[in-house]
Amino acid sequence: MAKTRAYAFLGGKISKVSLEKAAQLRGKPGVVIWADIEEPSKHDLAFLEKGFGFHHLAVEDASNTRQRSKVEEYRDFVFIVLRVFPKGSCEATQLNIFLDGNIIVTVHFKCIESVIEVANDLEKNPTLLGKGPDFLAYTLIDQCVDDLFPHLDEIEDSVDDFEDRMLKATSPEETAATLKMLFGMKKRNLAVRKIAWPMRDVLTVLARRDYKYVKEENVPYFRDVYDHMLRITDMTEMNREVLSASMEAYLAVISNNLNVVMKKLAAIAGIFAVPMVIGSIYGMNFVNMPELQYDWGYYIALGEMLFASCLMFMYFRVNKWL
Amino acid sequence: MAKTRAYAFLGGKISKVSLEKAAQLRGKPGVVIWADIEEPSKHDLAFLEKGFGFHHLAVEDASNTRQRSKVEEYRDFVFIVLRVFPKGSCEATQLNIFLDGNIIVTVHFKCIESVIEVANDLEKNPTLLGKGPDFLAYTLIDQCVDDLFPHLDEIEDSVDDFEDRMLKATSPEETAATLKMLFGMKKRNLAVRKIAWPMRDVLTVLARRDYKYVKEENVPYFRDVYDHMLRITDMTEMNREVLSASMEAYLAVISNNLNVVMKKLAAIAGIFAVPMVIGSIYGMNFVNMPELQYDWGYYIALGEMLFASCLMFMYFRVNKWL
Amino acid sequence: MAKTRAYAFLGGKISKVSLEKAAQLRGKPGVVIWADIEEPSKHDLAFLEKGFGFHHLAVEDASNTRQRSKVEEYRDFVFIVLRVFPKGSCEATQLNIFLDGNIIVTVHFKCIESVIEVANDLEKNPTLLGKGPDFLAYTLIDQCVDDLFPHLDEIEDSVDDFEDRMLKATSPEETAATLKMLFGMKKRNLAVRKIAWPMRDVLTVLARRDYKYVKEENVPYFRDVYDHMLRITDMTEMNREVLSASMEAYLAVISNNLNVVMKKLAAIAGIFAVPMVIGSIYGMNFVNMPELQYDWGYYIALGEMLFASCLMFMYFRVNKWL
Amino acid sequence: MAKTRAYAFLGGKISKVSLEKAAQLRGKPGVVIWADIEEPSKHDLAFLEKGFGFHHLAVEDASNTRQRSKVEEYRDFVFIVLRVFPKGSCEATQLNIFLDGNIIVTVHFKCIESVIEVANDLEKNPTLLGKGPDFLAYTLIDQCVDDLFPHLDEIEDSVDDFEDRMLKATSPEETAATLKMLFGMKKRNLAVRKIAWPMRDVLTVLARRDYKYVKEENVPYFRDVYDHMLRITDMTEMNREVLSASMEAYLAVISNNLNVVMKKLAAIAGIFAVPMVIGSIYGMNFVNMPELQYDWGYYIALGEMLFASCLMFMYFRVNKWL
Amino acid sequence: MAKTRAYAFLGGKISKVSLEKAAQLRGKPGVVIWADIEEPSKHDLAFLEKGFGFHHLAVEDASNTRQRSKVEEYRDFVFIVLRVFPKGSCEATQLNIFLDGNIIVTVHFKCIESVIEVANDLEKNPTLLGKGPDFLAYTLIDQCVDDLFPHLDEIEDSVDDFEDRMLKATSPEETAATLKMLFGMKKRNLAVRKIAWPMRDVLTVLARRDYKYVKEENVPYFRDVYDHMLRITDMTEMNREVLSASMEAYLAVISNNLNVVMKKLAAIAGIFAVPMVIGSIYGMNFVNMPELQYDWGYYIALGEMLFASCLMFMYFRVNKWL
Repeated sequence: MAKTRAYAFLGGKISKVSLEKAAQLRGKPGVVIWADIEEPSKHDLAFLEKGFGFHHLAVEDASNTRQRSKVEEYRDFVFIVLRVFPKGSCEATQLNIFLDGNIIVTVHFKCIESVIEVANDLEKNPTLLGKGPDFLAYTLIDQCVDDLFPHLDEIEDSVDDFEDRMLKATSPEETAATLKMLFGMKKRNLAVRKIAWPMRDVLTVLARRDYKYVKEENVPYFRDVYDHMLRITDMTEMNREVLSASMEAYLAVISNNLNVVMKKLAAIAGIFAVPMVIGSIYGMNFVNMPELQYDWGYYIALGEMLFASCLMFMYFRVNKWL
Repeated sequence: MAKTRAYAFLGGKISKVSLEKAAQLRGKPGVVIWADIEEPSKHDLAFLEKGFGFHHLAVEDASNTRQRSKVEEYRDFVFIVLRVFPKGSCEATQLNIFLDGNIIVTVHFKCIESVIEVANDLEKNPTLLGKGPDFLAYTLIDQCVDDLFPHLDEIEDSVDDFEDRMLKATSPEETAATLKMLFGMKKRNLAVRKIAWPMRDVLTVLARRDYKYVKEENVPYFRDVYDHMLRITDMTEMNREVLSASMEAYLAVISNNLNVVMKKLAAIAGIFAVPMVIGSIYGMNFVNMPELQYDWGYYIALGEMLFASCLMFMYFRVNKWL
Repeated sequence: MAKTRAYAFLGGKISKVSLEKAAQLRGKPGVVIWADIEEPSKHDLAFLEKGFGFHHLAVEDASNTRQRSKVEEYRDFVFIVLRVFPKGSCEATQLNIFLDGNIIVTVHFKCIESVIEVANDLEKNPTLLGKGPDFLAYTLIDQCVDDLFPHLDEIEDSVDDFEDRMLKATSPEETAATLKMLFGMKKRNLAVRKIAWPMRDVLTVLARRDYKYVKEENVPYFRDVYDHMLRITDMTEMNREVLSASMEAYLAVISNNLNVVMKKLAAIAGIFAVPMVIGSIYGMNFVNMPELQYDWGYYIALGEMLFASCLMFMYFRVNKWL
Repeated sequence: MAKTRAYAFLGGKISKVSLEKAAQLRGKPGVVIWADIEEPSKHDLAFLEKGFGFHHLAVEDASNTRQRSKVEEYRDFVFIVLRVFPKGSCEATQLNIFLDGNIIVTVHFKCIESVIEVANDLEKNPTLLGKGPDFLAYTLIDQCVDDLFPHLDEIEDSVDDFEDRMLKATSPEETAATLKMLFGMKKRNLAVRKIAWPMRDVLTVLARRDYKYVKEENVPYFRDVYDHMLRITDMTEMNREVLSASMEAYLAVISNNLNVVMKKLAAIAGIFAVPMVIGSIYGMNFVNMPELQYDWGYYIALGEMLFASCLMFMYFRVNKWL
Repeated sequence: MAKTRAYAFLGGKISKVSLEKAAQLRGKPGVVIWADIEEPSKHDLAFLEKGFGFHHLAVEDASNTRQRSKVEEYRDFVFIVLRVFPKGSCEATQLNIFLDGNIIVTVHFKCIESVIEVANDLEKNPTLLGKGPDFLAYTLIDQCVDDLFPHLDEIEDSVDDFEDRMLKATSPEETAATLKMLFGMKKRNLAVRKIAWPMRDVLTVLARRDYKYVKEENVPYFRDVYDHMLRITDMTEMNREVLSASMEAYLAVISNNLNVVMKKLAAIAGIFAVPMVIGSIYGMNFVNMPELQYDWGYYIALGEMLFASCLMFMYFRVNKWL
């Protein structure tokens, strides 16, 4: 069922109103309205068109949850789609914003925490709405953009972590775990990047000095979010390069580890081969093998074996194969 | 043989007409015409020039099925080429659209299902044609664009699937199958990308606010398809990165698997080498080998073998080589 | 020695003329001239400047066969350099075109088949020259551009072929051949790409609607070649990606094949190690080894060997190492 | 605690003033002021807004140490954020510059040596401040930009060093160290690149000929820093390519080293296998083995072993496996 | 010590003059002057500012040998910095050009052969200077640009050479040499690329039709050098791709070679394992081993060994492991 929240700001005070009332107040001078519809029913969506008078194509886009972030200007309102991450998740959801001179309507199918936070802020501090619907849009977008940073910070931490693990972890399980981690980080970074670039385009439009639906005194705020967005896209590009370099370096590390294993195998083969050869020599059944008759023959053979093996061992040690 | 379909919309009703009749109605005010020619014969193509009066270069392009998506404006009509995927296939075919103030002619050499669907929709709901030939062009293009999404969704599913398989599948056959799958997905993604970018250029032109052949009330629809197209190109870029990362990660996984195999080989060599050395020692034929005379000599030797092998085994276990 | 061909078109008829005559007819209204100079001598090159009056820098460029495709406008003519592939070869040669209101002079140091073909067409159909020197330039360029497609088609075929071979060919010789083939295709694709991009720039200029040296009715033809060029650059980009992906995938396949070999090696080592250990045990010379006295001792030992080997074999089979 | 430095230049002389005094002198003609605040307290930050009259959004940005380099024009001043490296470190810090017609205020949370150097220069040579606050900004930025070069030089040295080490170092430890070094250089280069590009954008703005806050006679100085910046971004791009090529080449070197190890292993196996087979043949207990009775049988067997091993050894030597 | 050369062209004749004289002639109509200063002393640099009147920032840039190629317009002269390769070397040096209406001053710290060549040409053919200082600048730049081609040709030759070596060279030493060669070519190509792109930007400016310091009749010459520069950047891009592809292909070749080695190792293990097992069987000391008593037992055992080894050998041969 739809959870609807609608606030009207009039004369310095804020009051909760019904959706119908909110729609009637659209365009009334001196009033600022914020209506938030979570999990809209078919009826709610129809009301957006009939009650609020928004263009049916915009309403259709709002119902289709696979939109790309965009800003679309219609004759008497602007329609903003933002793909955002709900806190702690990497599955993007869609936040639709209808913005007009005195009203802002937000529509979303999933619970978005930053919306709740802004609503709570608003109840504590009603003047927030008094700065106009564009300022409220700014607070919402700012929250959504700031929620992207923890993802990027975690990726950066993982990379720092990787640098330590890179050369230490040599067991196949740890290696596999590191590979999984690197691949996961790469996918996560791509997920952030995928929503960051279209959002940046949206903010390029909104932070324009002469944008119709943003009051001039609020432009610096949008420019500020835009700067954050720039930093996010910078970070995703940087992460992308670092992660690629990490994967490349790790492949070389794995190959190097293989070298280590193979050298050990060769050393094992070399060390044990010599005594076996000696043993098989004195195991031959020739009638005339004078050494076999010696009293100390056995001990000399044992000594030879040990000596040869030690020699081999030292040879491999010195060459760092063991 | 050519399958021709021609519809004329006049006074709120729709009627099937012959191709010749359709050509005559070109330019008649109040009538909207859609002629669809599948597998055109030489005669049909000639008729496009002589009957409908389209420029012969456009008709030539329509006959050559290896065009790139493009939009070309001629003096009195616009010629649109779209490369589209027939449903479920990855082999692009060509859809040619001749668009004028009151007529739309579509020409294609292969059966394109989205054309059939639009035709069926039209027979159910004749007013579709009443909105003008540009709106019909929009419905056609919209269908073609939407038919690209399943391909991309399948690729995304494969990638998600890959993440699970990446570390599990270690047999050479499964690995080969996964490599084949990754390579196939890469080619498929490239195929979508190849047709998506030129189509996006076409839509950039058609969604321009002041484009002559699109009525202003229909511009938002084209802008909508354009947004879909943006999402498609975004997705292909994203898929491309993910698939590259997958291939890279998989190469590292294969190398890591090789490490596992080599460690096992080295462990096998190490574990069996010791008893063999002991065996070959006591198999020597020296006359003076006191241990051989001991009553418990044999059992002690067996014990040594077992003990050494177990020691080796545990050493390799602890170091995770086994 | 230079092979010179010069045609004059006057009053619907075409006649062969000498180079000197051709030069005199430059600028004469009503006459259209095409002079083609193959393997120009020093004298011919000097005549271009003195006889035809072309700027000496253009003539110098025409003599230097290492130019890049370009179009250069001089005061009273335009100078076009095209790097083209002679049919079937991948070694680019240079085609120089001097174009003026009523004359086109082509200069090249190697035999270019498309020039010959156009000459043959012209002798069959003299009106070709009647459409102006710009149209003749179009036919020439169109031929050269179309000669690029077979190269790209062959690359695409090789890639399709590769997909089949990728997993089948495991012998080192076949692998080496496949690698050589992939590398060769990559170089070939690059060779096409290298000449395609500058040629595209040339066509961007020539297909401009208001280009001085191209008559307006011929613009659609140049636009058409330009579209072909777009398709070629598209294809080279696509091929590039596919070939990179192929190489990457093949590297993984080779690594995977190595896994197969190593697993077999480990299996061989494992299967033979056990009977050897058993054999060396019963080959020891201890006095007190009761099993040796058993009547069935030997057969039991043989049975143990067989049993252990079969167990090993089955173990490796089940784990798909063999 | 905040360390504050404020200088006022008046009538050719320089004097230390308090922050409050500095704020009062803002806008006074004939006076040039530089105030530097290190580790600003909350009170200092508030004073920037209230005392100096800077816009609160700029002050907020100055307090948030995770900004990206940028230049923001406000109504009566320009706010510049620079991310710089403190000498010898790779951890970027933030330098905030408020610039006006006669005042420059610098705010930073960490000690930045180039600021100290400029302060020292200023005390020696007071006329530095006489050239205006924009010139002082130039000296600061110039210092910060020049501090980037040592990082890039070190990376280039490492690469030159790498070329020597690439083929020499074959022990796993050295290889691992080289990989770590390459990866570290890549990260360092990325860190420089990350701060270089936004800084370049800042300098593009400041070096514009008609920029309001830079006097025309000082423009060449900013253009000069801009050229340095260009060189830095060039170098980072170059380093990036070289480091990628290094990593790629090193992976091939490691694979090649593996080949060396494997060939040695195969040679060891081959050389020892033959005497073992001979030994095990003559160790068989058949009653009728005539060779066993020969007087020279044992020596012949030993000779065979030696001969076969030498043959093997030479075979592998000639084929460069040993 | 500085080597100074100064030429004055007056009335069709050329005369050597002192630097001081050259400075006095700056701006005199009818005289054209070229002053070349190699290894300038401090005094020379100061004279550039005081004697010739060039802006001190330009002179500073000329003294700093780590500039990037650039063109900077000052009020009454243009300052050009070119990074060029001295013949046969890959270490770029800097050529500074001060260009004015009637004077060209070149400053460089290292001997640049193309400058010497131009000086020699000039002494043979004094009219060269008569065409103006811009034409002399053109001859200098043209020489420097043409000196880049041999580097690129050598890289292309190496690549062609590589294609032959790729599959032939299998010994580790040859492989290492090939890797070193590829890496060296990559660095060399990057070095060319690094100086080519900024130089191209310089030429874009100088080849502009309306550039103040280049006479209109000399523009085609600069356009010509610009075309050469385009070809150079094209070639570096092409080389870059080919070298990357080469490295990638070579990595695959090395992996494939490893496969060959491993297969041989496995074959050696397989071939020798069987006779060893047979030998160890008949070397067991069981009392009851009937085969041992057979007259032909030994020969049968030998036959078995040979037969099994041959079988193994043929198996591996057929499967192309040997």
